[in-house]
Order: sequence, then structure tokens, then C-alpha cells
Amino acid sequence: MADTVVMKFGGTSVADVEDVKRAAARIVAARERGNQVVAVLSARGKTTDELVAAAYEISKRPLERELDMLLSTGERISCALCAMAIHDMGHEAISLTGSQAGIVTDSSHTRARILEVRADRIRAGLAEDRIVLVAGFQGVSGDSKDVTTLGRGGSDTTAVAIAAALGADVCEIYTDVAGVFSADPRLVSDARKLPLVSFDEMLEMSSSGAGVLQLRSVEYARNHGIRIHCRSSFEDAPGTLVLAEDETMERPMVTAVTHAYEARVTLTGLRDEPGVAGRVFGALADANVNVDMIIQNEPISEDSKADLSFTVATDDLSAATDVLNGINVGDATETDPHVGKVSIVGAGMRSHQGVAAKVFRTLGEREINIEMISTSPIKISCVVAAERVPDAVRAIHEAFDLGADAVREEDPSGEHRPRVTS
Amino acid sequence: MADTVVMKFGGTSVADVEDVKRAAARIVAARERGNQVVAVLSARGKTTDELVAAAYEISKRPLERELDMLLSTGERISCALCAMAIHDMGHEAISLTGSQAGIVTDSSHTRARILEVRADRIRAGLAEDRIVLVAGFQGVSGDSKDVTTLGRGGSDTTAVAIAAALGADVCEIYTDVAGVFSADPRLVSDARKLPLVSFDEMLEMSSSGAGVLQLRSVEYARNHGIRIHCRSSFEDAPGTLVLAEDETMERPMVTAVTHAYEARVTLTGLRDEPGVAGRVFGALADANVNVDMIIQNEPISEDSKADLSFTVATDDLSAATDVLNGINVGDATETDPHVGKVSIVGAGMRSHQGVAAKVFRTLGEREINIEMISTSPIKISCVVAAERVPDAVRAIHEAFDLGADAVREEDPSGEHRPRVTS
Repeated sequence: MADTVVMKFGGTSVADVEDVKRAAARIVAARERGNQVVAVLSARGKTTDELVAAAYEISKRPLERELDMLLSTGERISCALCAMAIHDMGHEAISLTGSQAGIVTDSSHTRARILEVRADRIRAGLAEDRIVLVAGFQGVSGDSKDVTTLGRGGSDTTAVAIAAALGADVCEIYTDVAGVFSADPRLVSDARKLPLVSFDEMLEMSSSGAGVLQLRSVEYARNHGIRIHCRSSFEDAPGTLVLAEDETMERPMVTAVTHAYEARVTLTGLRDEPGVAGRVFGALADANVNVDMIIQNEPISEDSKADLSFTVATDDLSAATDVLNGINVGDATETDPHVGKVSIVGAGMRSHQGVAAKVFRTLGEREINIEMISTSPIKISCVVAAERVPDAVRAIHEAFDLGADAVREEDPSGEHRPRVTS
Repeated sequence: MADTVVMKFGGTSVADVEDVKRAAARIVAARERGNQVVAVLSARGKTTDELVAAAYEISKRPLERELDMLLSTGERISCALCAMAIHDMGHEAISLTGSQAGIVTDSSHTRARILEVRADRIRAGLAEDRIVLVAGFQGVSGDSKDVTTLGRGGSDTTAVAIAAALGADVCEIYTDVAGVFSADPRLVSDARKLPLVSFDEMLEMSSSGAGVLQLRSVEYARNHGIRIHCRSSFEDAPGTLVLAEDETMERPMVTAVTHAYEARVTLTGLRDEPGVAGRVFGALADANVNVDMIIQNEPISEDSKADLSFTVATDDLSAATDVLNGINVGDATETDPHVGKVSIVGAGMRSHQGVAAKVFRTLGEREINIEMISTSPIKISCVVAAERVPDAVRAIHEAFDLGADAVREEDPSGEHRPRVTS
């Protein structure tokens, strides 16, 4: 039986007429290699942003059910246009909405979770020798049969979920970058394209600034054992394979440096009562403020007060301060809208000591002040002043020899080349 | 039980933010008068044109199934935005796609016909005290469950079909004109807004240039006994009621003058063989050319050849000549891309003699040459040179005293006022 290939094209890969035709040609090429092909498409270019703007022109707080109805149109447009282009290339294609494709979700509008993929219509389309195009980012709620969306970047998750439902070996995610890099190539000139990354590393990277893959899609892929091939829609070279750790041949100590810009909030003179932190973060969650790093310094002396610091997305800062002013749990709220978070990620950190010390020393040598620190077994994150982020990223990238030249010298065996290409 | 009101808003009535809010306010006002309200919306402003253009950028012959998937997004956008606006006015609204609203059609993509309205979700929404918004122009094919569209102007038909399914008394069609006029007010300064028009008259008017209501929606309304109230979304005054002839109090001899611009094709030296006309119009139909008027002059002398003339939409002219050049049934094909059709319509013509003579005499007095004539029991159409259309319309309008002043003098009884308003 023919292999099933699931391909996903992001918004920049279907933005204008030539992009749509390029994506169609990629899809057709996969079909002509004898595969059964399912392609998941995102909305074109800025379509989703424009639809969101239209909603906010009408209403300050657009109804979430109706936002989903509105936003889900963007991917349908991409799919219909791509089906037309494929048809002109001599192949049969059929486009399906998320609902038609059987993407059944819960009913949390604007951030629904996929409960099940009932892929009957996809399978029927493939059985009729058709290329099947699926509108990404959307589904239908199992109970109310309403259109739902999966949140920003949800098309990655759609693609991985379909790959899992169809038993595909790999899910190819086509994007405007060539793969996952050892650092942002815009900051670090010798950043290296990583041939292999483990799911756990990718999860840490996605949550600490690497925008190339959506966090939930990586989780879904890990949980269902679907390898992700993250690659460029503009060139043929293989990109980065994201896969289980036991499939990677090597475990470099540090794989990549990532960064993100955020805002910092500090509550000083926090009342020393049980449940204060719960009240703070509960109230923030109710206001839909996503909190990233949290640090609390509990004083040793009993009658002192604690300080609590956390970071939030810059866009959420005013909402966060509104919430804090409303609940009155400390002496004062201080904010810094311009901080940056620099993280190093690597599965090998588990078995190597001294990574944290080397990071802190490297930043110290450059006189970059570390405001906050948080760690996981395979990640160390440091909050620094926003304007020092490029320096910090470059310094750490160099200190751990992550650059392309360094690797080429160290790794003549070719171990870094991907083991699986499509 | 509360009355059910079905309202339909056209593209110009939801074009920008203020329009959407105005439509929402109209809908809310109907709800606050104690009605159960269903509103059918068209795509905003030029949305459909833009989507069609996008399709033709991708493909010279876009797949019809995919065109439907593409075009159906426009009305969904309108509905979602309007639901948000209604919510901000303190009412609950739910938007439904054509498929969700149970508009079941055949599978003729881009020109599907409604087979059935399974209005369960609409009724459920009304029962929950919600305003129900339905995306016009679209449905779902009963067999393949694909998205279908009803053709240009199909939202009128959606609204009438829903009104019929819900047993509503009247279907209100909101548009950018104040109603149906005795002639195009842009050509005739004293054109009169008609308070009442019969279904048959409206059908003749819609098919002869009055763009205010889609032909099929009037047919559907006549067949199901649904009165249409055609009115302005920009003012509160009542518009025109379209209803069964036995409900109209009066039967004026002539109700209105309409006009349309077309192209004319003449085949000279047509071979005198059985089936020639069938071949000509069969081939035109296969090429999707809509033929309007047809005239054939069969010569009395047996060895002579016939001439065949017909009119088509100007956009279809080149397709029509391609077809004729391909089938070779006559000596030559002559075309005139700029003709106009002026029609007078009136249910009273059935019982009044001399209307045709008066029309021809009126045009003759202005030295307007009549190129083709066709008649129905309640309509006379004359094809004239395009540049003489405004003259012809004004002359006939005046000759039959259709202007506002004329009627006011003749009709002090107030009989012309609509008997039903909402």
C-alpha cells in the first residue's frame, strides 16, 4: 500500500498566488512519488490578523463562538484555492473544512483541544485517489456541533493529529524557515540548522521563544509517536526532524539558545498569608493573562514580607497590573515592560554538570545582569534587560560552540545529518 | 406565540462597521417588538467579487466545488460580525452556516437549488430566545455533504426559503434602495416607489433588468405564498410588498418600465434544416451562455434561408461567437455589443388592449428604432440601440403616466399604500 504523507503549509507558504502554486507543486510532487497525500493549510499571510481586526472594529469583546466562526474562514479560502491549483496540475484534490475532516474538539472556543479525529472522509478521499486538503486550526465541537478553533498556530496540531489518525510515519511542516536552528539566525550569523531535535528539547524551545513549531503540536506528536519534519517551503533541502530521544544518535550537552521578549512584574511587600500566591495567579488566569516565569523570595525572618516576581507577554502587562491593583495583596507593584528571556536547551544537560555555572559566568564576563533564573532538567532560562538579549544569545552560542563551523570541525562523522528524509 | 420575522440584509447593508451595526440595530428592534427573529446576511460589500478574483488569479477554470467552498466564507464573516454587534446591544445571537441552518440543496455547484430546509437548529436557537443569523447564498448538498452555493443573489432565496420553512408571514429584504420603482430613478426623476407588486409582475421585472430582487427568490415566494417586503436598510419608511395578485387591490394597466443592457447576435443565412435552432442553443447552453430574447424570421419562400437573432449578456458575447464559429450553421454571424432592452410590465395588460401599439407609437415619435420585440401576457420588451435606452424609458414612463405626480392625482383614495407593514 502507498505511504501516507501528511504535509502542513503555514500562512507565509500560501500567502500569494505564487506561494499557493508552489505549495500545490510540492503536494503534487509527493503524490507523484506514489504517496497518498493529505495537506493541512493555514490561512493566507495576514488573513487571520485582518479578520481579528474586523472583529475588534465591531466589538471590544467579540463573542468567542463568533470569533471562531469568523476566523475559520481563512483556512477554507487557502484550501479551496490550493485545490484549484492542484487540479490545474492534472491531479484531483478535494478540500475539507475541519468539521468535514472529522476534527472533533471540546467546546472551548478560540482555544479548543482536539478530542478525536474521525478521519472517514479523509480516508474516503484518499481511497478515491484524491489529494485531500484540510483546513487547519479548526474543528467542530463534539456536543454543540459549533465551529471551534485551536488557537494561534493550531494548524500544526491539526496536521500532527491527522498524521496520528492515519498512522502516518512523519508529519511534514513546511514553513518560511529552513528548520530549527541553534539560535535565531537574525541574531547569530553562524547559527546552525539542527538536523535532529528530541521532542523534549523542542517543547522547551517552543515554550522559550522558538516560534517555528507550536507547543501543543509537539506535545501531540510526542504523545502519539509522530515524527515532525520541520522544513522550508522555499527550498528542497531537508530541515529538522523532531523525534523521540532514543531515536537521536547523539546527545549534545546544549542544543540551542532561544530568546523571547517579555514584561516583568514584581509585587513587593507581599502579605505573608497562606493562599496569597494562589489568589494572585488565580486572578491573573481569570483575566486570561499567561504567566511565564515565577520567582518568590520567602524571607527567613518571620515578620518580614516576601517579594514575588513573574513575567508575562508584553501585550498582557496592562491587564496584569489591572488585576493586581484590584486584589491588594502587597505594598506595591513594579513593572518593567522590556525584559528578555534567554534560554539554553539540551537533552544532554541532564548528565552534564556545570552548564548553569558556565552560562552565568559567560553572562557575567559580558557584564549582563541576570534578573531572574529558572531551570528545568534540560533548560536554563535567564531574564536580562531587553537590550542585552542579542549580546547574551551570541555569547552563550559561542561559549558552547554551537556555531556551524564549530560543529563541522567537531563532527566529521556526519552524525548530524538527518536519518530520515521524505 | 411570538410572530416569526425573517429579515435579509444584502451586501451593501453590511459593507462596513457602521452598516453592520445598523443592520444589527434593525434586527434588535424587531426582536424588541416581541418577534422571533431570523436574519439572513449576504457577504460584505465586494467580498464575493474579491474571492472570485482570487480564484481566477489561481486558475483559469476554477473547480466549481472549490469555488463554492471559497465563496461561502463571505456570508459567514458577515454573520459572525453581526452576531458580535447584536451581543453588544444586549441580545443573544447565534450565527449558522447554510449547512448548520439545514439548507439542503442538490449538488449543482455554483448554482445549486434548495431541495429542503431542515430548520431544526434555527428553531432550537429561537426556542432558546436567541436571534438566529444565517449565512445566505449557501447550503450543503444532500448526497455528498459538500458546501454548495445558490448563484448570485442567492441570499434572497435563502431568506424566502427559511420564511417558508418557519411559516413566517412575510420575508423582509433590506437593500440599498427604498423598494421597487416604476422605473430606474437614476434615469427617471419622477419614478414612483410602488407600494404593491404582484409576484408575476415582479418575476417579469426581475428578468428584464430590475436588479432589486433575485428571480428565483420571487419564484420561490410565489410557489410557497410568502410575501416579500422589499425595503431600504437606511430608512424606516415601508418599501414595496410583493404578493399574490388576488391580494393587490388594483391592477394598473402598466406597473413599471425596466431596462437592461445586452449584446445582440444575428446569424444570417441559417440553413433550413430541422434541428438547426436546437443545435445553436444547445451549444450555447453547453458553454453556459445565457440567452435572453430569441427571434427567428422563417422565410415564406421555400428555398430561402432564415435569419436568427438573439440577445445575451454583454460578458457572454465572445463566448457566444466562439460557439457559433465552431458549429457552422449559417452564412455569417453579426454582433452588436451595445443594445438595450426596454420592457413594460403590468398585470393589467392582460385585460387592456392597445398597450403594445402605444409603446411602439411612443418610441416611433422619438425616432427610436425597435430592433427586436418579444412579449408575454404581462410584458412587452423592445430591443433598441443602447444609447437610446434613457430616452425610451423616460418616454414610456411619461406616456403611461407612471410618475409620482400622475399617480397622486389619480389615486386620492390611498389605495396605493401598502396594506401590510411590519
